[in-house]
Amino acid sequence: MKLLLVNGNTTQAVTDLVRVDALRHTRPGTAITAVTATFGVPIVSSELENVIAGHAVLDLLATHARGHDAAVLAISFDTALTAARQLLDIPVIGMTEAALHTACLIGRRFGLITFGTRSRTLYVDLVRERGLQDRMADCVSIEVASVATYLEPAALDKLVCDAAQALAADRGADVVVICGAAVAGIAARLQPQLQVPLLDGIGCAVRLAEMLADLRPVKRPLGRRIAAGVAATGLSENLTRLLTDGDS
Amino acid sequence: MKLLLVNGNTTQAVTDLVRVDALRHTRPGTAITAVTATFGVPIVSSELENVIAGHAVLDLLATHARGHDAAVLAISFDTALTAARQLLDIPVIGMTEAALHTACLIGRRFGLITFGTRSRTLYVDLVRERGLQDRMADCVSIEVASVATYLEPAALDKLVCDAAQALAADRGADVVVICGAAVAGIAARLQPQLQVPLLDGIGCAVRLAEMLADLRPVKRPLGRRIAAGVAATGLSENLTRLLTDGDS
Amino acid sequence: MKLLLVNGNTTQAVTDLVRVDALRHTRPGTAITAVTATFGVPIVSSELENVIAGHAVLDLLATHARGHDAAVLAISFDTALTAARQLLDIPVIGMTEAALHTACLIGRRFGLITFGTRSRTLYVDLVRERGLQDRMADCVSIEVASVATYLEPAALDKLVCDAAQALAADRGADVVVICGAAVAGIAARLQPQLQVPLLDGIGCAVRLAEMLADLRPVKRPLGRRIAAGVAATGLSENLTRLLTDGDS
Amino acid sequence: MKLLLVNGNTTQAVTDLVRVDALRHTRPGTAITAVTATFGVPIVSSELENVIAGHAVLDLLATHARGHDAAVLAISFDTALTAARQLLDIPVIGMTEAALHTACLIGRRFGLITFGTRSRTLYVDLVRERGLQDRMADCVSIEVASVATYLEPAALDKLVCDAAQALAADRGADVVVICGAAVAGIAARLQPQLQVPLLDGIGCAVRLAEMLADLRPVKRPLGRRIAAGVAATGLSENLTRLLTDGDS
Amino acid sequence: MKLLLVNGNTTQAVTDLVRVDALRHTRPGTAITAVTATFGVPIVSSELENVIAGHAVLDLLATHARGHDAAVLAISFDTALTAARQLLDIPVIGMTEAALHTACLIGRRFGLITFGTRSRTLYVDLVRERGLQDRMADCVSIEVASVATYLEPAALDKLVCDAAQALAADRGADVVVICGAAVAGIAARLQPQLQVPLLDGIGCAVRLAEMLADLRPVKRPLGRRIAAGVAATGLSENLTRLLTDGDS
Amino acid sequence: MKLLLVNGNTTQAVTDLVRVDALRHTRPGTAITAVTATFGVPIVSSELENVIAGHAVLDLLATHARGHDAAVLAISFDTALTAARQLLDIPVIGMTEAALHTACLIGRRFGLITFGTRSRTLYVDLVRERGLQDRMADCVSIEVASVATYLEPAALDKLVCDAAQALAADRGADVVVICGAAVAGIAARLQPQLQVPLLDGIGCAVRLAEMLADLRPVKRPLGRRIAAGVAATGLSENLTRLLTDGDS
Repeated sequence: MKLLLVNGNTTQAVTDLVRVDALRHTRPGTAITAVTATFGVPIVSSELENVIAGHAVLDLLATHARGHDAAVLAISFDTALTAARQLLDIPVIGMTEAALHTACLIGRRFGLITFGTRSRTLYVDLVRERGLQDRMADCVSIEVASVATYLEPAALDKLVCDAAQALAADRGADVVVICGAAVAGIAARLQPQLQVPLLDGIGCAVRLAEMLADLRPVKRPLGRRIAAGVAATGLSENLTRLLTDGDS
Repeated sequence: MKLLLVNGNTTQAVTDLVRVDALRHTRPGTAITAVTATFGVPIVSSELENVIAGHAVLDLLATHARGHDAAVLAISFDTALTAARQLLDIPVIGMTEAALHTACLIGRRFGLITFGTRSRTLYVDLVRERGLQDRMADCVSIEVASVATYLEPAALDKLVCDAAQALAADRGADVVVICGAAVAGIAARLQPQLQVPLLDGIGCAVRLAEMLADLRPVKRPLGRRIAAGVAATGLSENLTRLLTDGDS
Repeated sequence: MKLLLVNGNTTQAVTDLVRVDALRHTRPGTAITAVTATFGVPIVSSELENVIAGHAVLDLLATHARGHDAAVLAISFDTALTAARQLLDIPVIGMTEAALHTACLIGRRFGLITFGTRSRTLYVDLVRERGLQDRMADCVSIEVASVATYLEPAALDKLVCDAAQALAADRGADVVVICGAAVAGIAARLQPQLQVPLLDGIGCAVRLAEMLADLRPVKRPLGRRIAAGVAATGLSENLTRLLTDGDS
Repeated sequence: MKLLLVNGNTTQAVTDLVRVDALRHTRPGTAITAVTATFGVPIVSSELENVIAGHAVLDLLATHARGHDAAVLAISFDTALTAARQLLDIPVIGMTEAALHTACLIGRRFGLITFGTRSRTLYVDLVRERGLQDRMADCVSIEVASVATYLEPAALDKLVCDAAQALAADRGADVVVICGAAVAGIAARLQPQLQVPLLDGIGCAVRLAEMLADLRPVKRPLGRRIAAGVAATGLSENLTRLLTDGDS
Repeated sequence: MKLLLVNGNTTQAVTDLVRVDALRHTRPGTAITAVTATFGVPIVSSELENVIAGHAVLDLLATHARGHDAAVLAISFDTALTAARQLLDIPVIGMTEAALHTACLIGRRFGLITFGTRSRTLYVDLVRERGLQDRMADCVSIEVASVATYLEPAALDKLVCDAAQALAADRGADVVVICGAAVAGIAARLQPQLQVPLLDGIGCAVRLAEMLADLRPVKRPLGRRIAAGVAATGLSENLTRLLTDGDS
Repeated sequence: MKLLLVNGNTTQAVTDLVRVDALRHTRPGTAITAVTATFGVPIVSSELENVIAGHAVLDLLATHARGHDAAVLAISFDTALTAARQLLDIPVIGMTEAALHTACLIGRRFGLITFGTRSRTLYVDLVRERGLQDRMADCVSIEVASVATYLEPAALDKLVCDAAQALAADRGADVVVICGAAVAGIAARLQPQLQVPLLDGIGCAVRLAEMLADLRPVKRPLGRRIAAGVAATGLSENLTRLLTDGDS
């Protein structure tokens, strides 16, 4: 099986981190391709940046999806998820929705830990858009100073453990989801210190992508999305092709 | 890996059907134990019967769970799901929630097909209790005459296909979940006739149970649930032991 | 008039307490039968225990309902309420829903006081299932150490008064409901110390049961719930009879 | 016990009808005072008319409540209910909320039958404001030609029976509430023709008013509602007195 | 253009204040008529008083609306808004709904600042009735001692600024609405001290009233609201005429 | 005053149409700049195309906003609205939200008319995201064959009138919003044929943009959105500058 991981941030180090974590969770024989946004910002943290990342994600999918069995959005806002499902005929799964739905299979109400107060509303809106707001106990946002902090996650561990404890003890969460591509692998690393189950996105997404690829439900892209005789303008060749012909 | 399938109905033929379908979806090396309720009614179809099945499900889990890596509730009302999670230290997944959450990873809004108007409210309440009502496009209930009908599902296929088509064409569903232990395997059988993706419970539940067992999130039963020195009364030996000692 | 009080806990002392409190509220000429679960746990405080109590409650109703004008579920989770209504042709009312609906006739938003953090989610889910979450100002859960504490309620009074004051002063509650069969009568006892109206379950339930029995709305049990020629298995004789014949 | 029935319409014939129906439901020894709005419109059927009726209802309560144990708003929009509770120190209950909450104690989802499409939104908003929208299966509005139609309800019976049947058979209602002061008594009259339980407002309200008066929860009017030294202007003497002194 | 401002309180000083603030926001050539309730209480602060104000507002509209292009309810509970729209054939806008909808065009979630804890529920219910509860971050109620306080708003400024800061910093509000006719103009006065956008009712309402009058959407009063041959009773001549003939 | 109209579709004819309609609604002295997406698809009708249009809209705003007093998103999905507000320090308003909020000031529940079943979910989600779902009576989607149809709207008029009538008569809508940039001006054209008030987006948006520009609430773009020393990649010069410096 071949999975495509698409990082909508332009930071290659995050893509590398995500790729390494994905390989911890794949079954034997699953291969991973991990690609990085070719335009946009280093780490998306606002709606503004996320809109641009949406275009970048679609562009990456149009360019690289061929030959893969499923795609994972390795950007924690599940950027352009619905659009991506309209673009491709393979399953596409967002890393955060993967963790949220898995959490729903483990506990009654999940707590959410996110990084950066600026992006908090993006996560809260994502939970609501997924229709899972009744399953969320609360969301704790941990402020981070810079991109560098993400890539040295050891500094964050104490804050995350405290937040997870508080979500379990005071807010009624019986499972905790930690959001962020840049902290991929944090759940497994911190679980030994905590009694509440921890989940993060990549591990859940990779396993669910394998499952969805196995299930192989009928999946049709929207196909010839624009009327014959007119054309998309100013987009990459691959994206233009998929938008016009629906051929993936 | 060893999975336990628990049928809260007393009909052995349903257990056999479920077991066969489960084996179609397990990975190589996964073994299935399938057990049938020792008390209750042949096919649960009302809240009244479902309350009794809840006790039967817990009794089966207390008796058979030891040595398994995860348990699947192979009764389509996900009977006693929360209680079961409180009872055991292995993952427990309901067959219908498994299909619903999988559907959320494939489409935006799922249609639901259920059998028997009498049990319709049980399903609608289940969706609401899972917090997924915003993801449900609509629920179509197909009336069935008897238990026998369930076990000869060919007679139902036309009705199910029509319902699935209508959910997709008129109600905005882009994925359809078919509920019912007694129709295990129907999604795969009918998919070739339909363009909208179909899911049913056992295939999703078995795959997700394997995934959850692999993830191995911390999982603690509630343990010594009643105060020391007092005791449960009139229950099976196994259930009494788990309720009193929390030892599974 | 004859009312049946059904205690889904196995503690006879709670049944006795509930019976005494019920008699404070009945009209002249109303007789009370109070029965105790024959299997289960001393005091239900988790979903796990509540599932078992559901079976016990139905068994008690099947055994004792004949000859009564209405039944009251004297266990504060209103255990198996919908199932009980499907079982019998007399009105069945839960003690907590009775207090909640009465509260809605007195104030705009009720505060809830419950005992034991472990059972808190059971109460919150009950309010939601009853559709009354928009009428709830907040829920305060008071931790209790043991069953014994329940039966010596004087020790709880200060905590309850403080909680009621806080609900009224800070959370906008203009009426307070105190939950728990084991504290039956607490509302009347503490009302003199408080300016916000207090309600508890048994007093409301008994009065409403009398009212419903007087109103005598058409009420039909589901009747012959399982197909002719098949049978319930492993249940008490009375429950089997009602499930099979619908004859109460 | 003395109950005050307040008709916010100016039609004396409706007051008489309501009074007669109330007396069918009171306990021995309960006396009824029934009063009619002194200003406003014959039969309220829009928000516009209902605002005026609100003032009229408060004026009647201020004038007549002294010496009564509870008050019933005998106008089916429960006009000025919250305001009335702020005005008086006796329980006040609306006829429609009485039927809705009683319905919640009998079934899972109630159907609503109302008269006049113009007033339909008033009823739907009332249900929502009471927080009971999740318990409503559907609302059927029957068009009526004139006030005279209300007072000769025989002509409506067929329409009401058909609507109740449809609510039960097609919309999942297991209890039906018929709204309208001008049809007081219709539930008892039509019940023999129907298998679904029927409720109307006055019977429920009178019984619940007796119950609330018996329970005698602490009840304080808001009292001296306007600052000392200022005064209400242009209102009736009784209303001015209550608004200024809080003395009922 | 001619706008009618209707103050449902009986305090002329509030009407004067509102009139002055309105004139700061009107376009050149817009004339303002401002009228004061002829009955009721000096400053409405409870549902009880608001019901009476509803009648007073309708009476003022019936008396003064002729010749105006739009009406503004210059009482911050938007008292009798729906009824007013049914009464007149010109646009009617409530001062608080005007600020709330404007806030929705500026930010994602608005904070609400209100005066007087007694009236807090009136505002929260108004937001809910307008369907905007999902857009409200939180509501802070500032206690005020007397009517005099309202008319010397300088004393309130510090409290309001602190509340606005807290709503923006801690509750996620990105725009703040300050409610109350008696503080008309406070948003413009305090804006220089704050970085979060502030809005109050009159400025928004006057501008939106001009816009609606320009748009001139079809607008029909309900007209002959009561059946021919019957009549409203005990109301002012103007209100009676509009209720009976629908002639504005 | 100068308003910027941003068309996220690449069809210049739509921009021209929108510009003409805008000029019908502006006040004397208001100038309009109307710009067209430089990349993307001719007419957006899916989430897929809308994600790309989001980038195009931001790019247009970054390039053209300087010197304008407010911006209007002249694409009926209000594409990238929140992001646009984060980008600029002038008010930004979406054409559809403008019509929806105006509708809320005219009636109680609006009906929605949209074109193309494929884009229906985009509109329903937009209403939900704006928090206005409780104000929507229903949404009717009219299928259109091609872009050409949009530009010859006469062919659509009968369908739109029928839909508006149905929404008013059967679904309880008392105001109707017609969505779509390509039908700009349709509300004014069809209003003479209908008794229910009609609104469309551009007229409302232009007037509200003028109002917001006049109100001049504090408005700060997010500013230096990415950490100093790192840079956006592969974006237009103008967008890069705003993302990096927050200088508009």
